Amino acid sequence: MVDNKVSAVVAYAPAEPGKLNFRHESITINRTEPGPKEVLVRMLAAGICHTDIVVGGIPDGYMGSYPRVLGHEGSGYVEAVGSEISSVQVGDPVLLSYTYCGTCDICTNDVQTYCEKFFEGNVLCVDKVWKGKDDVEVGGKFFGQSSFASLSLIDEKSIVNVKGLVDGDEMLKLFSPMGCGLMTGSGAVVNTAAAKSKDVVLVAGLGAVGLGAIMAAKIQGCREIIAVDRIASRLEIAKQLGATCTYDTNHLDITKDSYPSDFAGEVKALVEDGKINYAFDTTGVLPVVNACIRSLSKRGKLISIGVPITPSTTIIPFDYREFFDGTKRIEVNYLGDCIAKDHVPKMIQWYKEGKFPIDKFIKFYAAKDVAQALEDMKTEVIKPVLVH
Amino acid sequence: MVDNKVSAVVAYAPAEPGKLNFRHESITINRTEPGPKEVLVRMLAAGICHTDIVVGGIPDGYMGSYPRVLGHEGSGYVEAVGSEISSVQVGDPVLLSYTYCGTCDICTNDVQTYCEKFFEGNVLCVDKVWKGKDDVEVGGKFFGQSSFASLSLIDEKSIVNVKGLVDGDEMLKLFSPMGCGLMTGSGAVVNTAAAKSKDVVLVAGLGAVGLGAIMAAKIQGCREIIAVDRIASRLEIAKQLGATCTYDTNHLDITKDSYPSDFAGEVKALVEDGKINYAFDTTGVLPVVNACIRSLSKRGKLISIGVPITPSTTIIPFDYREFFDGTKRIEVNYLGDCIAKDHVPKMIQWYKEGKFPIDKFIKFYAAKDVAQALEDMKTEVIKPVLVH
Repeated sequence: MVDNKVSAVVAYAPAEPGKLNFRHESITINRTEPGPKEVLVRMLAAGICHTDIVVGGIPDGYMGSYPRVLGHEGSGYVEAVGSEISSVQVGDPVLLSYTYCGTCDICTNDVQTYCEKFFEGNVLCVDKVWKGKDDVEVGGKFFGQSSFASLSLIDEKSIVNVKGLVDGDEMLKLFSPMGCGLMTGSGAVVNTAAAKSKDVVLVAGLGAVGLGAIMAAKIQGCREIIAVDRIASRLEIAKQLGATCTYDTNHLDITKDSYPSDFAGEVKALVEDGKINYAFDTTGVLPVVNACIRSLSKRGKLISIGVPITPSTTIIPFDYREFFDGTKRIEVNYLGDCIAKDHVPKMIQWYKEGKFPIDKFIKFYAAKDVAQALEDMKTEVIKPVLVH
Repeated sequence: MVDNKVSAVVAYAPAEPGKLNFRHESITINRTEPGPKEVLVRMLAAGICHTDIVVGGIPDGYMGSYPRVLGHEGSGYVEAVGSEISSVQVGDPVLLSYTYCGTCDICTNDVQTYCEKFFEGNVLCVDKVWKGKDDVEVGGKFFGQSSFASLSLIDEKSIVNVKGLVDGDEMLKLFSPMGCGLMTGSGAVVNTAAAKSKDVVLVAGLGAVGLGAIMAAKIQGCREIIAVDRIASRLEIAKQLGATCTYDTNHLDITKDSYPSDFAGEVKALVEDGKINYAFDTTGVLPVVNACIRSLSKRGKLISIGVPITPSTTIIPFDYREFFDGTKRIEVNYLGDCIAKDHVPKMIQWYKEGKFPIDKFIKFYAAKDVAQALEDMKTEVIKPVLVH
C-alpha cells in the first residue's frame, strides 16, 4: 500500500494577475490505485517552464481553477500502473510530456501537439487528484502530469519510458526538462523548419527553449546561428552551445517601440549575405516578434513559439506589404511538432554524444525553495529543476 | 525573314497612380533572330491578369520604366528558336508562364516561383524588345514574355510546349490564362495546401485565381468549399464550378473597418462544425485578409495570394494572441508553387476530363478593345483574353 502523503508546490489563485502564489506544502493523494489508463509516478524532479509561470499568474476561473498543481517537465519512477497499461512497468524510470486526446481531426491527421482538446487536456486541471488543507480539492493532470507533486497520477499519453536509456537518478533528474522546453526548441529546428546546412537561423530568447534550438541548429550544421537576448550571460552560453554570432537587444527600447527599427538591419548585418531563413521567437514579446518577421529574407519563416506577452494589447502593427513582397511565412509552433516518445530518446542520444550539453544551464533546487528558483530565473538561471 | 511589324497593347506611364495608360498601336520588333536561349513567338492571345493592372498603374521608375509591353498569360506558335533551345521547334503551340533565374539559393533548393531575382526577371522589363513611335524604346520580357504584343521574344524558361496536348487555335486561345491565374489558384490548392477530402476551404475573391482554386478544391474532393465575393454573378459561377456554399460580402463595410467583425462568425456558420482549414485570399484587400485569418480553425492556414491593395496603409492590426492561440499559419503564395511545365499539362488534362471548365468564365476581346475588356473586368467579366 502506497502512502498517500505527498509534498507539492501548490498553485493558489494569484492576488493579482501575474503575481504567483505558489506554496510548498503537504497534501494527500486521493487514490494510489491508478485508473485503467493512468500511471502512478513517484516524482524525482520537475523543471520549471515559462508556461507554469504564465498559467500560474492567470486569475482564478479564466484558465481553470485553483488550487492546483502545475509542473510539466517531470521525471520519476513508476509506482503503479493501470490495468490497460503495457508501455511501462513498476520501477521503470520515466520522463513526462504533454498529453492529447488522440481522436480529434488534428490528432488523427496532423501533429498531436495541436490537438483540438489541447487546452482541456493540458491546462484546465479538472481532475482533482489531491486534497490540501481543510480537505480542499487540488487539481491535477496539468499537461497530463502535474509534476510539482512528489506523487502524481499521470495520463498514459504523457509517459515516455526511458528504461535502458538513463543511468541512475542524477541523469534522470537532469533530463527532466526534455519533455517540454528542450523538446520544443530542438523539435522546432529539426521537425518544423527541418533546417539544413545552407540555412541561417535566428533564435530570439535564450531560455531552455532557445538554447534547445541553438543546439539543434548546430546538430543540423546550420550555416549561421544568431542568438538574440538582452542578458549577456545567456548570449555567452549560447556561444558555447553553437551560436556563431550574438545580438544583444539591451540597447533597444523594446517596451516603447511597437517595432524596434534597428533590429532587422543589425541582425542581418551579422551574416555575410544578410539572409536569414528561419527565425525562432521564444520570447512572446510582440515587438520582438514583429522585428523577427522583418529580419527574414525572402521565403523566410517565423516559427512562433513563445506565448505572446500582452501587457496592454494583443495587436501588432503588422506590415503586410513588406511580408507579402518578401513571400514570408509564419507558423505557430507547439512543442516542436514532437511526439515525445520519438523525440525524447533522440535528445538522450545527442546528450550522450556530447551534442546536447544541457548540464551547462540546468540548476537544481529543493522543491521547497521554489520561490528562490523563480527569482533566479529572472536573470541568470536558465532552467531550474525542482527536486522532490 | 519575319516581318518586324507588330501590333501591341503598349503600357505608357500613368498620369496618376492606378490610372492605366494602355494604347493599342503598331510597333516594330528590334530583332527577329532570337538569342541563344530565346524563342520568337507569334502570339495568338493573352489573358489580362490583375498583376498587369497593378503594375501598369505604378508610376514611372518605381517598378521599371515606360513604355513597355505587359501581358503574362500568352499563347502562340513558335516562329523561330535560339541556338541553344531544344524544348520547342518552329510551329509548336506554346503556353507562356513566369521566368526565374535558376541559379539562386531558392531556385536550387526551394520552389522557383520565389526566385530571389523574381522581380528583376519578371517585372522590370529591362530588355528593350521593340521600338514605338519616334523610335522610342519599348521594354519587353514582362514575365519573360510580354504577351500583349503580337510578336515577342520569349525567355526559354517561360515556354511550355503543348504540342500534342492542344487541338487548334480555339483551344490554344482558351488555355492562355493557364500560365498565371489558373495555375496560381489551382496550384495553391493542390501543391501549397495539398488540400484533402477532410478539409474545408474558403476562397476569397472569385477572379480566375479564385475560381481556379474552387475547381481544384472540387477535384481534391474537399468536404466544403466556401466561395466569398461581393459580386452575385461570381458567387453563382463559383457554385457551378464546385463551391458548396457562398458568402456575399456586400453587406460588410470593408472599406471602413480594419476588420469586418461579422465575417468570421458568418462564414464559420456555413459549415456544420465551423472548422475552416484553409483560406485562400486572392483579393489583397487587407480587411479581408485579416478576416480570413480570424475565420480559420485551429492549425488553419491562410494562403495569401492577392497582392495587397494598399490605398493608404500597408499595416494591418493583427491580433497576434488570437493567431497564436489558434496555432495558425500564414504563407504567401506565388503562382501556386507551380513549375509551369508540370502544372499546365495537368490543367489541360483536367479540362479534357470536364473537371476544369474554364470556358465558363473566359471572354475573348480583340486586342484593340483592351479598354473595354478592362472596364468589363470590374464587374461581370472574370477573365478577358485579348486576341491578337
